[in-house]
Amino acid sequence: MKRLGIGVVGVGDMGRRHAENLRRLIPQANLVAVADADAQRARRVAAELEVEHALNSLEALLERKDIQAVVITSPDKFHAGAVQLAAAAGKDILCEKPLALTLKDADAALAAVDKSHVRLQVGHMRRYDPAYADAKKRIESGEIGEPIIFKSIGRDQNAPPLSHYQAGLSGMLFLSSSVHDFDLARWLMNDEVSEVHAYTSVLTRPEVAQFGDIVAGVVNLRFERGAIGGVESFVQCQYGYDVRTEIVGSKGTLMVGRLLRTEEFVLTGEGGRQDIVDHFLVRFADAYVLELRDFVETILADGAPRVTGQDGRRAVAIAVAAQRSYRESRPVALDE
Amino acid sequence: MKRLGIGVVGVGDMGRRHAENLRRLIPQANLVAVADADAQRARRVAAELEVEHALNSLEALLERKDIQAVVITSPDKFHAGAVQLAAAAGKDILCEKPLALTLKDADAALAAVDKSHVRLQVGHMRRYDPAYADAKKRIESGEIGEPIIFKSIGRDQNAPPLSHYQAGLSGMLFLSSSVHDFDLARWLMNDEVSEVHAYTSVLTRPEVAQFGDIVAGVVNLRFERGAIGGVESFVQCQYGYDVRTEIVGSKGTLMVGRLLRTEEFVLTGEGGRQDIVDHFLVRFADAYVLELRDFVETILADGAPRVTGQDGRRAVAIAVAAQRSYRESRPVALDE
Amino acid sequence: MKRLGIGVVGVGDMGRRHAENLRRLIPQANLVAVADADAQRARRVAAELEVEHALNSLEALLERKDIQAVVITSPDKFHAGAVQLAAAAGKDILCEKPLALTLKDADAALAAVDKSHVRLQVGHMRRYDPAYADAKKRIESGEIGEPIIFKSIGRDQNAPPLSHYQAGLSGMLFLSSSVHDFDLARWLMNDEVSEVHAYTSVLTRPEVAQFGDIVAGVVNLRFERGAIGGVESFVQCQYGYDVRTEIVGSKGTLMVGRLLRTEEFVLTGEGGRQDIVDHFLVRFADAYVLELRDFVETILADGAPRVTGQDGRRAVAIAVAAQRSYRESRPVALDE
Amino acid sequence: MKRLGIGVVGVGDMGRRHAENLRRLIPQANLVAVADADAQRARRVAAELEVEHALNSLEALLERKDIQAVVITSPDKFHAGAVQLAAAAGKDILCEKPLALTLKDADAALAAVDKSHVRLQVGHMRRYDPAYADAKKRIESGEIGEPIIFKSIGRDQNAPPLSHYQAGLSGMLFLSSSVHDFDLARWLMNDEVSEVHAYTSVLTRPEVAQFGDIVAGVVNLRFERGAIGGVESFVQCQYGYDVRTEIVGSKGTLMVGRLLRTEEFVLTGEGGRQDIVDHFLVRFADAYVLELRDFVETILADGAPRVTGQDGRRAVAIAVAAQRSYRESRPVALDE
Repeated sequence: MKRLGIGVVGVGDMGRRHAENLRRLIPQANLVAVADADAQRARRVAAELEVEHALNSLEALLERKDIQAVVITSPDKFHAGAVQLAAAAGKDILCEKPLALTLKDADAALAAVDKSHVRLQVGHMRRYDPAYADAKKRIESGEIGEPIIFKSIGRDQNAPPLSHYQAGLSGMLFLSSSVHDFDLARWLMNDEVSEVHAYTSVLTRPEVAQFGDIVAGVVNLRFERGAIGGVESFVQCQYGYDVRTEIVGSKGTLMVGRLLRTEEFVLTGEGGRQDIVDHFLVRFADAYVLELRDFVETILADGAPRVTGQDGRRAVAIAVAAQRSYRESRPVALDE
Repeated sequence: MKRLGIGVVGVGDMGRRHAENLRRLIPQANLVAVADADAQRARRVAAELEVEHALNSLEALLERKDIQAVVITSPDKFHAGAVQLAAAAGKDILCEKPLALTLKDADAALAAVDKSHVRLQVGHMRRYDPAYADAKKRIESGEIGEPIIFKSIGRDQNAPPLSHYQAGLSGMLFLSSSVHDFDLARWLMNDEVSEVHAYTSVLTRPEVAQFGDIVAGVVNLRFERGAIGGVESFVQCQYGYDVRTEIVGSKGTLMVGRLLRTEEFVLTGEGGRQDIVDHFLVRFADAYVLELRDFVETILADGAPRVTGQDGRRAVAIAVAAQRSYRESRPVALDE
Repeated sequence: MKRLGIGVVGVGDMGRRHAENLRRLIPQANLVAVADADAQRARRVAAELEVEHALNSLEALLERKDIQAVVITSPDKFHAGAVQLAAAAGKDILCEKPLALTLKDADAALAAVDKSHVRLQVGHMRRYDPAYADAKKRIESGEIGEPIIFKSIGRDQNAPPLSHYQAGLSGMLFLSSSVHDFDLARWLMNDEVSEVHAYTSVLTRPEVAQFGDIVAGVVNLRFERGAIGGVESFVQCQYGYDVRTEIVGSKGTLMVGRLLRTEEFVLTGEGGRQDIVDHFLVRFADAYVLELRDFVETILADGAPRVTGQDGRRAVAIAVAAQRSYRESRPVALDE
Repeated sequence: MKRLGIGVVGVGDMGRRHAENLRRLIPQANLVAVADADAQRARRVAAELEVEHALNSLEALLERKDIQAVVITSPDKFHAGAVQLAAAAGKDILCEKPLALTLKDADAALAAVDKSHVRLQVGHMRRYDPAYADAKKRIESGEIGEPIIFKSIGRDQNAPPLSHYQAGLSGMLFLSSSVHDFDLARWLMNDEVSEVHAYTSVLTRPEVAQFGDIVAGVVNLRFERGAIGGVESFVQCQYGYDVRTEIVGSKGTLMVGRLLRTEEFVLTGEGGRQDIVDHFLVRFADAYVLELRDFVETILADGAPRVTGQDGRRAVAIAVAAQRSYRESRPVALDE
């Protein structure tokens, strides 16, 4: 079996999961090394997953000749820079979303990729979720006619601690969370967003305002061909991790999404009760495996990644426009 | 039993249902007459429901001394004028939504009501739906903490024929349909909407554009105390009549709404299938009865209506702002 | 409007509901009198519902010439005897289920009805529930092919107090509750039950055993044409009133039943929660109205009742066979 | 990493899946060889999964010193004999259900295992399904009080071809399918079944009767401590693979089971539609992996299997009693 030498940089929750998937579930991948600025964390993860090399920088990882591809799961702020370094080193890249926190950074990253002729896939893993993937097929088959409204909800159970906001490692909610829905919007509607308008709230946690962030946002979308839509994001819904999408068409409507964690329903004197999925690593466990497997197989087969750098840039562009709409209290066109 | 002499003006589908409910299900009401500009329709409905008098104008109905209250179900365009006439005649009034198509008309109607010291209830019947009524109680009890996001969807199965738009008897979608959700927004959030922004579409039926109407709209809402929201309306979803609302709070989320017509689930080689409610008169059958019963009992008991003229005016104000946002492509504040 | 003079005998919860429905929702009925052995209860209900006459015996009610039909809602033990008296008095009859507690009593009741040429309808109201009525149509249309398995569950929230068992006014669980499912079995399968086998339990309330009753039963059914089935009944499930039926056919399966009280779903840190219907008068509110309306219209139109005395007898026969299976620990054929 | 040398005998659908899971998802296992009486099938599977050795008999597989454990997935009829051979060869064993088709064979298998001091786990994989596993915990925690009724449904989409029945490789429906539910009954109720009664049907496919088999069965259960239950099995429900279980207790009820394949809901003019899981390898995909992983880890850790030979024997005993009830038309006690 031909195997792809691979390294993961940044082994927090997300990076650790990618490393674990590579190690346990993707035999065509040879996970050579994990790297993290926190050297102790790199060593711990390497030990747990029986990975040979624990490194303390992306640079160290890129030097290795037995690594052909890297998975970038460092904090969002470093994504674009890491892509540039990896491209310069001639490595193929799977970069977590968002590709960048600004369009300028996104463009620099894409230019570096182009220049080095490496391959870049952006981690919009929802496209690999079996339900979303099937939804895409149904829409393409014409099952719901012409799509006219796109709606998507993304709610996290608990907001990060304030220290997370202080550290400033991620962008605001539109970049860290809604960006998933913006990617779905483009992909499922097979169209580009032309203008957005956002309202936001910090009602339940005013402290985040000082960091330029929000706890909730509703973003109205206008698409180029005349469709419309809305994306809602909320960071502390308490009850679980809740991602649901509806595509309304001229012939029918498609609902995609799961709310329930287990297949159990408990009935007592207090009514009927169901447990809810509490984390994106549970809800999208399969999607992450399928994404990584596709990336590995694509690189081994010398193919073109399915979720391109342009896809990553365009999702960022919508998020950045929503951010501007929030700051300037007006609709913002994507081509401004 | 003390009974309230009552007349219904405008006996299309909605007025006919009100007349039928009064006749069959509300013993405290004495339905004296039905009136319709289409005299034949008035006679037919009167005959079917065994109502003594069939009249061909509101004026004729208002002349009757044995009528103390009127239900106004004439076309939307005539609501405000009918309220003024009925008030001048000293009758108590249940007026279908929307109260008016412009704020000027709404204000004139409210002034007439004030001057004549009659009582006015506006037909936002969803407040009487058992599920919505219970949701209101849960929110007030603090079950979901502080509400931060209000979401509502209203989809009709089939759009009216083009002749309906040509006749110009109703306002645009925001006034004819979204106005229900705007009323829910104020009532369930116990707050006022301060600003709105709308995107609209005629993608699936461009012909309605010439009449200044749309087939789909998404309206973002900002509330005075810092909450946000979104309302979606669509006139031709094909699959049924679909009304759903979510209120997201600091402690939990409340979903209200029914999609299914029957309690049956059919499983065959084609999968599982459920029939969907197809009409608002089915979905809100109970609400209409409870609304009318409450109106009749309130008038008989000399009480104050629960859904006031001000409520009706404010829902119209939101719709009018959304309409302006659509026409002027910008967010519109309610106090402009 | 031609109206049917009617009297209700026995105005506990069930009889009171029938009286209320007659009074408020069925204009073709003229509820002349209510009767109850508890004279005070008869007076209270008559006062509440504004019924002219409150009587203290079935006999007094049967004497009235302005009463053409009676609704029998006295305790189960008295059903068969009441039918005989009413028939002898020439009144048409709607008798609550079960028709009798023994086959001998059922036969005596049917003989009296035959002899007097009155009409008898038995109160298997589930046949009037919109979902069950629609299920019947679907099965008849061949939508699920040939039915091969019938399954039904009936669970009450709370068992009656021990005093109820001591008074001995009802038959055991198979006669008081499962009899509904036995009627559904015959009706939906369009077939007769030929043999039954029952297991029973008093595990959660051993005290009822002394009264010859049980708290839970599972009854296996064999149908004449080769289909099979199972009925489960339980008196104290705590979480609500739960009635569900599945009919499995050669082409598909039909599920009928509702578990939820309101259309709300509450999501909090404890998961998702729904309230459950708690009482048969809530779950089958519509069915009781439709049943009574059909009875009144049928009698006024001189027609034949849809749920016949034979239907009532056959449901009793299955219950009695299940009772015997329980007592004798063996399968029991219906034609023994 | 310490790894367990393992072989799979019988690589039809089920054995192939086990082999694939061992190869791809369980790194602690070293799948040394697959064996099948059909040598070509063994070679094809070995090639596809890159397994070194393809053998054409269990004997050949048992001779290998590098194999410490075997997975038996040959036809049901050969299970007990294969267990005896494997035990005699000193191999640890994971044997698919049912352990045997008769109690005599089951006892012979258990005796061989005892004598050789090898470990035997029986493939009741539902115990490893996350939902069932969680249900077990909830029941043990007392969440639903004392269990009084156990209900389980198992429906396959399509019956096997007649040739399958002719070959006589499996036992009747109670042994091939209901045996899963009988195991759940013992496990979830934490009690033993003391008596059963069965009704059966061949209504939709009379041809299977000549082979002593049925298409549908309902089996009533009595438990030793006084609880009761019912198991329904059907081989050709057309709409999918449907496994659902309810445990009714003194304080509440637990429902376990999934009906839906994808997380999509499609709404069109024909109503709402959902795809249904069509195969046990889809529904229980996770359970099979978790089962195998637990087996491998248990053997490597020198522990005792969680689903024992006795568990396997007792499930068979219930199935055999149900078979006898069907043949002799009477309730059958487990200790006869």
